[in-house]
Amino acid sequence: MAEGASRPGPAADPNGLVDAALAGDRRALARLLTAVENRTPAAEIALRRMYPLAGAAHLVGITGPPGSGKSTLVSALIGAARAVGRPVAVVAVDPSSPITGGALLGDRVRMQSYASDPDVFIRSMAARGHAGGLASTSTAAAAVLDAAGFDLILLETVGTGQSEVEVAAAADTTVVLEAPEMGDEVQAIKAGLLEVADIVVVNKGDRPGAQRTASQLRSMLVAVGGAVGGGAAAAAAGGGTGVQADRPRPKEPEVLVTTATTGEGIAELLASLDRHRARGGDAGDTPARLARAEAQVWAILADRLRGELHVPAHRDATAATMRAVAAHELDPFAAADRLLAELR
Amino acid sequence: MAEGASRPGPAADPNGLVDAALAGDRRALARLLTAVENRTPAAEIALRRMYPLAGAAHLVGITGPPGSGKSTLVSALIGAARAVGRPVAVVAVDPSSPITGGALLGDRVRMQSYASDPDVFIRSMAARGHAGGLASTSTAAAAVLDAAGFDLILLETVGTGQSEVEVAAAADTTVVLEAPEMGDEVQAIKAGLLEVADIVVVNKGDRPGAQRTASQLRSMLVAVGGAVGGGAAAAAAGGGTGVQADRPRPKEPEVLVTTATTGEGIAELLASLDRHRARGGDAGDTPARLARAEAQVWAILADRLRGELHVPAHRDATAATMRAVAAHELDPFAAADRLLAELR
Repeated sequence: MAEGASRPGPAADPNGLVDAALAGDRRALARLLTAVENRTPAAEIALRRMYPLAGAAHLVGITGPPGSGKSTLVSALIGAARAVGRPVAVVAVDPSSPITGGALLGDRVRMQSYASDPDVFIRSMAARGHAGGLASTSTAAAAVLDAAGFDLILLETVGTGQSEVEVAAAADTTVVLEAPEMGDEVQAIKAGLLEVADIVVVNKGDRPGAQRTASQLRSMLVAVGGAVGGGAAAAAAGGGTGVQADRPRPKEPEVLVTTATTGEGIAELLASLDRHRARGGDAGDTPARLARAEAQVWAILADRLRGELHVPAHRDATAATMRAVAAHELDPFAAADRLLAELR
Repeated sequence: MAEGASRPGPAADPNGLVDAALAGDRRALARLLTAVENRTPAAEIALRRMYPLAGAAHLVGITGPPGSGKSTLVSALIGAARAVGRPVAVVAVDPSSPITGGALLGDRVRMQSYASDPDVFIRSMAARGHAGGLASTSTAAAAVLDAAGFDLILLETVGTGQSEVEVAAAADTTVVLEAPEMGDEVQAIKAGLLEVADIVVVNKGDRPGAQRTASQLRSMLVAVGGAVGGGAAAAAAGGGTGVQADRPRPKEPEVLVTTATTGEGIAELLASLDRHRARGGDAGDTPARLARAEAQVWAILADRLRGELHVPAHRDATAATMRAVAAHELDPFAAADRLLAELR
């Protein structure tokens, strides 16, 4: 890159991009996030410089089933945070298109509303079908935005199920949205989502049944509370390296009712987010942060090993081992042990 | 286990369970699947014996958004396969409850309908929030069922997004369901699902708009077809070790219309499954099988390494490294390199 052979201009140099992003250049910031999303070598260089500058922001995961009004709630939260002078970034994580990528959320519309405010940054990212990719890409993107001075970082996801759990693993505080009176299958999905909730929001509070749904959720949470570890830390524990397993949930999630379209309840939600953050304390090693660190280190370690198995010296042996497993001539445990021996 | 100290009876011995399961004992088979789901040491012993006996079954992933009628379609497929004498197993993968586990599908009802038929085996499994856990647990469960003589293994998943991609990675053939005239947000999710489809089924074919939806899907698939690798192999390529990247999609997915409640179109679906399987050929190294082998080996390798980092000799150093990353005193790349050095 020193000679600038194939890429245009000095901005393609990751260190130049980092300098510019730290100085407030949003275009440079956007390019760094593209590098993070595509896992380019530049991303590692940038992240190694920016990670030590990060750690001050509040990372908030916003999840919930389709139709619960996530986008509208996120817009309302941006407005409320800006009203008190806080810079806000949104990472809209889209797991729906793992191969070609995709930006299916309504964030282009939202970006226009805040186009004149340099302290609002909205970005959608695809997950690219990578096991654990949602969490590690979200975490890396958040570190870049955090270092760039964004104080509140909203990680919004579309979809249901595993993706929410991964996004929760990347957040300090996980907000799970519900809409009043949803269908039966969506109800069933709730139980899983509630396990990762630090705060539950019944949005569309102007609809009939909102308060009843909130009451039902409070009852469900009491029932669920005894059985699980709790919140974002619980979400990450399954995939982490185990340091955080079995911590008790510190407190039952608060259940709030909002009407994002009118702004009703949004100030209360912002206050609830602050309370949850304060409970975590200022120490760097909250359960959520430890779990996130583990997930991140593990993802990098796995990438390193995967890379090593495909350098020219190992590539053919790796491929032969995989073919033998595919043909059921070798069991996958024996194959894993063979590859581990190769790596040593 | 030789002394039988803490577990009751000889059936707790994994080799005994394997012998019994191979002899047709369904209760032993169920216990082996529980071991696989919980990733116990017994699971490894059992899988190492059963894996070489597997490879003959056709693994079919059935995915689709809530409300598309997956459960009913699976029931109809069971009936059609049994009518031609094929033993059928169903693994209903539930990603919605990663921490406490869960069995939210209607499989208890379904199990009752086939309770008297020993050649139908239905089992639900939770995913437990493990990155890549859905695919590796499904693959391992399928290998056990395959070795036990099930010829058609249906991997059914609930939810949307990443979980489907993981289940597709475990299947030879992936069937994506759609219902006619679904809402806008569900439409958006389609694009991601279609990328992993080998066969697309518009179910609820008796509803107005079914044929039009099928036509729209055929148009979308032509558009998507040029951009992606194709089917189950494409789904796994992102998380695999790369051997299968960039293979062209062998053929556009067929789009069928079914009405699972009446059985309309089910025989055609079974025929379409057979055609897709035949195209893959009898060779063990179809793209889907290679991708699956890689995902499986990789999951085991990762588990091995995770375990090593937590043996007494490494445990404290690992925890200290993770705490330093959580406090932003150490960047995660430096941490990964430190742990890799520990492992060598």
